[in-house]
Amino acid sequence: MRFARFLNSDGHLGLAAKARTGEFFGIAESSPDFPGDLDRLVASGLEAMKNASTTLLAKGAPIPHDDIGHIPLLMRSGKIICVGLNYAEHAAETHFEAPEYPTIFARFTTSLLGHQSTLQVPLESDQLDYEGELAVVIGRAGRRISRQSALSHVCGYSVFNDASVRDYQMRTPQWTLGKNFDHTGAFGPELVTIDELPQGASGLVLETTLNDKIVQKANTNQLIFDVSTLIALLSEAMTLDPGDVIVTGTPGGIGMTRTPPLWMKPGDICRVRIDGLGTLINPIGSEA
Amino acid sequence: MRFARFLNSDGHLGLAAKARTGEFFGIAESSPDFPGDLDRLVASGLEAMKNASTTLLAKGAPIPHDDIGHIPLLMRSGKIICVGLNYAEHAAETHFEAPEYPTIFARFTTSLLGHQSTLQVPLESDQLDYEGELAVVIGRAGRRISRQSALSHVCGYSVFNDASVRDYQMRTPQWTLGKNFDHTGAFGPELVTIDELPQGASGLVLETTLNDKIVQKANTNQLIFDVSTLIALLSEAMTLDPGDVIVTGTPGGIGMTRTPPLWMKPGDICRVRIDGLGTLINPIGSEA
Repeated sequence: MRFARFLNSDGHLGLAAKARTGEFFGIAESSPDFPGDLDRLVASGLEAMKNASTTLLAKGAPIPHDDIGHIPLLMRSGKIICVGLNYAEHAAETHFEAPEYPTIFARFTTSLLGHQSTLQVPLESDQLDYEGELAVVIGRAGRRISRQSALSHVCGYSVFNDASVRDYQMRTPQWTLGKNFDHTGAFGPELVTIDELPQGASGLVLETTLNDKIVQKANTNQLIFDVSTLIALLSEAMTLDPGDVIVTGTPGGIGMTRTPPLWMKPGDICRVRIDGLGTLINPIGSEA
Repeated sequence: MRFARFLNSDGHLGLAAKARTGEFFGIAESSPDFPGDLDRLVASGLEAMKNASTTLLAKGAPIPHDDIGHIPLLMRSGKIICVGLNYAEHAAETHFEAPEYPTIFARFTTSLLGHQSTLQVPLESDQLDYEGELAVVIGRAGRRISRQSALSHVCGYSVFNDASVRDYQMRTPQWTLGKNFDHTGAFGPELVTIDELPQGASGLVLETTLNDKIVQKANTNQLIFDVSTLIALLSEAMTLDPGDVIVTGTPGGIGMTRTPPLWMKPGDICRVRIDGLGTLINPIGSEA
């Protein structure tokens, strides 16, 4: 199953399912047929998601690709857990040691934006950097989940651009502030359920382009801590709940470590593509 | 106004208001008179809080102090923003430089517990450390809030014990994981509205005791970044929303930097008292 939110030209929000043909069929929130928003469906479990998909494909209207996204894929996640330094090449380029344990920081939902929404260079900085990443959506709660059973807690996957305001990120030992500017965490376009993908979303090519130039390219099988391991290690500390998102880390090629640095600027377009998960496209704008 | 959640011996949750006499008067969630939970009241604004307080004091039943707490003061905060190294003495004892900018990390709501609930030493560590702190509850949304108007965005204050699993906190450059074990973030007992307190909750003595021995003592006027400054600097990056909590940092005296280290262990009792905000009391237990 593949779900996406949409916002049509009349200003109606809704939920769409993607057919095998690649077409989206959707129902607006205001319709009596609306099967519930994606946050609620994820919390309700796979059966509810199957019913919703069936309803959307049977009763939904065709949704133009231009209407897909515009709002974050999930909007009420209790946790957005981001992993740093999870590809060896990226750890090396930032001169951090390749970690023996996952490096974790958090995003708040106020930082999120959808596919086709504008990633905003804030007033206070011109150092907005891309970070293409695989996002894992939890579907079943658990604590101290074993590596062996970890993937049974995953509902699906999507694409994330963990865009970072580098001067704020590096201003103190903790990265949180530079990772939480409004309109910097792009999330979408689709939630793709696990049945459509290889185990643990491994073996997928991830490619970030800025203005059609490839700036990051890696394979999700290069993750230092794979999806199962992340779920096991994170859930040692905390209960994972349905709707929680694990953003698994970015590969090498970020703009900060280039000479000269490559920052995203108004008028640019950033795309993050992952095999089987589609392409997250965001124009860059400015709060100025 | 002073609000507290309660859980009575029949297993009923509810909300109480504290009278000038020090008595609590409360209404259970199951009652038709229930004025709404505290998360919703904070989001609804001061007028709704006044009406709720009036209803609770007029129609509520006396609630024994033993029933106060047991669940976190707020349970659906969009952001719990924690500040590190915000007292000079604490920065010095941890050998971090006193910061020129607030050091920010996040807690998720899954880590919270209430007044009188048990702070849990996790299975994986015996390094559970106390951190008594002043908590600020946002009541009005804003972005790029000026220092001058910052306090008009505050709804009230409470007490927080930002208990930290130190080996996990220090295992990577980011502290997030060690700050997010389930049952480690104690929050309560009361939400005290701004009209009951000095401007910015400044000039209040904060005192943490472990088994009745004073282990931290400071005054909130020693905060390196005061409440107004924190709101101004945080809101440069992110929209602050009603119900968001800023946990302002802990003074010197933590257990990790003592010789030998002083960890909280099952059977201990930790108390954090702040003038005008009451005492947050938590027994220490173990997940083992």
